[in-house]
Amino acid sequence: MTEIQTLRARLQSLTKLGSALALMSWDEEVNLPERAHEYRGEVNAQLSSELHERITSDELTSLVNKLADPEVFNSLTDDEKVIVRETKRDIDQAKKLPTEFVERMARLTTKAFSAWVEARKKSDFKIYEPVLGEILKMKIEEARLLGYKDSPYDALLDEFEPDMTVQKIDAVFKPLAASLAELIGSVRGSVPSLPARQYPLDKQVILNQKIAAALGYDLHTGRIDISPHPFTISLHPTDVRITTRYDSNDFWGALGSTIHETGHALYEQGLPASEHGTPLGEAGSLGIHESQSRTWENFVGRSRPFTSFLYPQLAEHFGAQKFSEEELYLWLNRVQPNPIRVESDEVTYNLHIIIRYELEKDLIEGNLAVADLPAAWNAKVKLYLGLDIKNDAEGVLQDVHWSHGAFGYFPTYTLGNLYAAQLFATARKALPTMDEDFAKGKFKGLLGWQRENIHRHGRRYHADELIERVTGEKLSSEYLLEHLAAKVKLNY
Amino acid sequence: MTEIQTLRARLQSLTKLGSALALMSWDEEVNLPERAHEYRGEVNAQLSSELHERITSDELTSLVNKLADPEVFNSLTDDEKVIVRETKRDIDQAKKLPTEFVERMARLTTKAFSAWVEARKKSDFKIYEPVLGEILKMKIEEARLLGYKDSPYDALLDEFEPDMTVQKIDAVFKPLAASLAELIGSVRGSVPSLPARQYPLDKQVILNQKIAAALGYDLHTGRIDISPHPFTISLHPTDVRITTRYDSNDFWGALGSTIHETGHALYEQGLPASEHGTPLGEAGSLGIHESQSRTWENFVGRSRPFTSFLYPQLAEHFGAQKFSEEELYLWLNRVQPNPIRVESDEVTYNLHIIIRYELEKDLIEGNLAVADLPAAWNAKVKLYLGLDIKNDAEGVLQDVHWSHGAFGYFPTYTLGNLYAAQLFATARKALPTMDEDFAKGKFKGLLGWQRENIHRHGRRYHADELIERVTGEKLSSEYLLEHLAAKVKLNY
Repeated sequence: MTEIQTLRARLQSLTKLGSALALMSWDEEVNLPERAHEYRGEVNAQLSSELHERITSDELTSLVNKLADPEVFNSLTDDEKVIVRETKRDIDQAKKLPTEFVERMARLTTKAFSAWVEARKKSDFKIYEPVLGEILKMKIEEARLLGYKDSPYDALLDEFEPDMTVQKIDAVFKPLAASLAELIGSVRGSVPSLPARQYPLDKQVILNQKIAAALGYDLHTGRIDISPHPFTISLHPTDVRITTRYDSNDFWGALGSTIHETGHALYEQGLPASEHGTPLGEAGSLGIHESQSRTWENFVGRSRPFTSFLYPQLAEHFGAQKFSEEELYLWLNRVQPNPIRVESDEVTYNLHIIIRYELEKDLIEGNLAVADLPAAWNAKVKLYLGLDIKNDAEGVLQDVHWSHGAFGYFPTYTLGNLYAAQLFATARKALPTMDEDFAKGKFKGLLGWQRENIHRHGRRYHADELIERVTGEKLSSEYLLEHLAAKVKLNY
Repeated sequence: MTEIQTLRARLQSLTKLGSALALMSWDEEVNLPERAHEYRGEVNAQLSSELHERITSDELTSLVNKLADPEVFNSLTDDEKVIVRETKRDIDQAKKLPTEFVERMARLTTKAFSAWVEARKKSDFKIYEPVLGEILKMKIEEARLLGYKDSPYDALLDEFEPDMTVQKIDAVFKPLAASLAELIGSVRGSVPSLPARQYPLDKQVILNQKIAAALGYDLHTGRIDISPHPFTISLHPTDVRITTRYDSNDFWGALGSTIHETGHALYEQGLPASEHGTPLGEAGSLGIHESQSRTWENFVGRSRPFTSFLYPQLAEHFGAQKFSEEELYLWLNRVQPNPIRVESDEVTYNLHIIIRYELEKDLIEGNLAVADLPAAWNAKVKLYLGLDIKNDAEGVLQDVHWSHGAFGYFPTYTLGNLYAAQLFATARKALPTMDEDFAKGKFKGLLGWQRENIHRHGRRYHADELIERVTGEKLSSEYLLEHLAAKVKLNY
């Protein structure tokens, strides 16, 4: 076996342990008996640490370093170069954080999560403040360990979105924030609603399966289950599972989630199976992943032609509707600022993300003290969303992320929206019959375009490079703004 | 850490990988997307072989051998002695079969399974004969590798039921076979039936959950799913799952399976959690496991008092019944020889097992050629069950087991029945109000007795020792015969 073949074999072996871990987390959300969590935590901890040990093993490291030596590297094929470059990146990153640090962080986040739960319940930030302070200290240490050029926040961003920096994000978030805040100033006070009715769960299940399949989700290599927080997990391109949650008062709660997760799943089902385990068989980045889910949820699922496809199916599954197709469309695209991120509409959602981005950047760069966070939060919500925050629970305590130590994660949501908008505009040019197709329930054109331009590449290109290659220009806020401005117009 | 503490820690770590494998097999039967089997097979193969490597590692072997040295061993507590003795047994057994042999067997059984599927479909033993011959040759080689005193078949039996031998089995199977064959000669021609009706699946699901919970199955540490072949799997005493299968024409198909699997699950939930991973936290043997499922299915579930408990619940869940409680009882205990084992009643089932036992013993001992197997099968079915076998599919080709290489497995089914009968007779003496309790839906007395006498011991005692300790006498066919004779009497 040549060295590159050995590397492939090692990675493909590693990934099998990863698949077992993936199945365990899926099971934990979907099936785990109530009192089995403690033992499952132990199994997870052990196997995760075994996987980490194997990734950072001396054997794998020296193998990759040998292949990364310029003389050897230059003799590799393009595909092989990607595998070596990205694997080296993974190993280097994994080795920068000492085991002691990782374990200390794990203990701290367990403690922080409990504190957050209690603080949110009592709507009292003071309970959360000390442990959040400890987390912040450790994240700043983490940034130092990982290394960075300009801002320590860059190091944390890079963990979720390789090569992403404050400078690059500011260039798109700043114009977006300014324009969106202005735009939502113009939405009318009253929002459209649909007449109340029941949507029986068994019929919703059938409809969700049908729509997901129509979009291109292959149920021979996937399945839809129920979990409190919808998610997608992939063990292999032949085993990509999504979840949703049903509410008998609202068909869109489940269906919107299903369409979103289907977007993630289509990406995973479209990665090259022959490269499973190597970086060529992995998604490009979290932001690119999110762009796929947002494309299907917002650019397809809330579009006028999709409404034409969906409307008759609602009647078919739930009986005659007391609203028109146009009313459904307006309802799906209603805009109304809400203090809670996860209950927000497509437009104001991005302002929620920008608020979090600005705050966590200030925290990490040392420009904001944890004690001043609630006041800073409330001020930004007032500034961007025009809302007065009544208490910590509906303000700074609403998200779990920071208690997990996830700083630098929130921006990937809006990056996903930006990528989605720019990619979708390019796809639209390539697919002139897109709208007619959607109205007829035909989505193969768009999926084929994504497969060709995004999915098959795995981690070949980092996000900014991929966007530029596919769309012919650098990431810009223009496309998302145009899309959201049209949505806001529906709400005048 | 002392050496025994190190051993415990190693075993508890090993078992976590085992739990991941257990979850994967559960998932494979219950959830796996149609086209995900190939990749799952690869993951299974890799993790199973890693587990095998760890069990047979030099480090673990030398640790156990050090502890098994008489001078050290004698200084251990009773619990520690069990752990060392049984772990040494596991390692020694695992090491007797070279990796090359295990892999060759895996390839051969894959081939044999396909041949069996085709042969059964075409009802033509000739298709299966050559590969079954190869398997037989390897099983004889396996017996030689494992070692034995009297019969090579003893070595194979010992893999499923430690210490079990042809001599011990013959002592109970021979009188059982003779008496049963005579008994079933006396059953009447017509069998009781229940009027046809529908049992909606959603209501069956609720009833099955209710009955399993009533028997003592803790659904906070378990769950009931659907699979084509019902089974029980345990990841840990806090995560013990069962499956069943539903048929809208027949409530007992699912409920009988649920009660059977509940018996297995109660055993697993009753093993000491603090000993999980060590032999003290593992079931005693396959036969003892089967005794627990058969106790609940046959000695409880088909009893007259249980019928009194069940009857009103059928009406509650499915509406008024067109049969009496007594008719239900007679129907649950109907006896009628059937050429197919898995469709057989409680009485004739054991004759099916005895037939298989005698045949596989003859094959392994070299007293029967594979080519002569169909004729030998048919002759024994005629002798014991009085039935004429029409073709290979309903005869020698009906079971998958031999294609998997499982020789010595079938006897554990009837051993389970024998253990169940003898243990239940002892429990009855200790629990004088048992029948009244069952009729009222109270099963804690029996479960408590099992917990105390069987479950908490793990692998402390091998089956024959356990039976003798609990019942005060050696294994005997008398108790099962008495129980089955009473069932046959209901069919005069």
